[in-house]
Amino acid sequence: MELSIHSDASYMKEALRQAQYAFDEGEIPVGAVIVCQNRIVARAYNQTEKLQDVTAHAEMLAITSAANTLGAKYLSECTLFVTLEPCLMCGGALYWSQMGRVVYGASDPKRGVLQVGASVFHPKTQVQGGVMQAEAKALLDTFFKNLRG
Amino acid sequence: MELSIHSDASYMKEALRQAQYAFDEGEIPVGAVIVCQNRIVARAYNQTEKLQDVTAHAEMLAITSAANTLGAKYLSECTLFVTLEPCLMCGGALYWSQMGRVVYGASDPKRGVLQVGASVFHPKTQVQGGVMQAEAKALLDTFFKNLRG
Repeated sequence: MELSIHSDASYMKEALRQAQYAFDEGEIPVGAVIVCQNRIVARAYNQTEKLQDVTAHAEMLAITSAANTLGAKYLSECTLFVTLEPCLMCGGALYWSQMGRVVYGASDPKRGVLQVGASVFHPKTQVQGGVMQAEAKALLDTFFKNLRG
Repeated sequence: MELSIHSDASYMKEALRQAQYAFDEGEIPVGAVIVCQNRIVARAYNQTEKLQDVTAHAEMLAITSAANTLGAKYLSECTLFVTLEPCLMCGGALYWSQMGRVVYGASDPKRGVLQVGASVFHPKTQVQGGVMQAEAKALLDTFFKNLRG
């Protein structure tokens, strides 16, 4: 089946491609893209190891990049696609950005923001999980299996 | 009374100086310093307006800066002094950094991390509030009064 170039699945595929870049560089494989009016305005992947900076999660880098691209602090017209449920730091950043919509792949039952509750997100933010979660989870599982093996 | 150069109060005074820089530049006045072995390894103030980036809170910039200075991702030997109770984003970042100790000034009953609970912090992180809170709060109150006036 072909993906529409503007479908959620096509954007999540691009986020998965970002996660693969992280994987290839020995980073925990999480990728993100931010879409505004059917245009990708930011692509990023986790770089905490390379930058030696715990704040360099894919979502954080994508938020900063999208704001730079758009010249705007608030991203209420944008959608974030991210391969893993955001953590509390990224959930807090998404709140401040007033992100219009958040679509994520795999759940993170340990450090995911939804452990605290959907109230972390801005009241106007729509949140949807489980998009291509199998692919996102497989990449993470392989990464941690290799790390331990 | 003179302050010891290595006292909590002296470091909070430096954080307040950072907050004043933010104030002078029209930013919400929050300042932070990170101290490691009695040495300030990072100073930062809120720059969300200047950088048009909601992630540019004083604490986030200080964490990144301290990690760069020390060449280390984890800051378990460090203390963060910040003039305002951290938000959830910064609380999440402090968790990932494994910050040894967090000392803050004014409370933030609206968006402060303690609304969610101390469990946001890393289990090893000591947290202490209310240090020079009057000064920190006065700066914030003046800022918002000017903004509205």
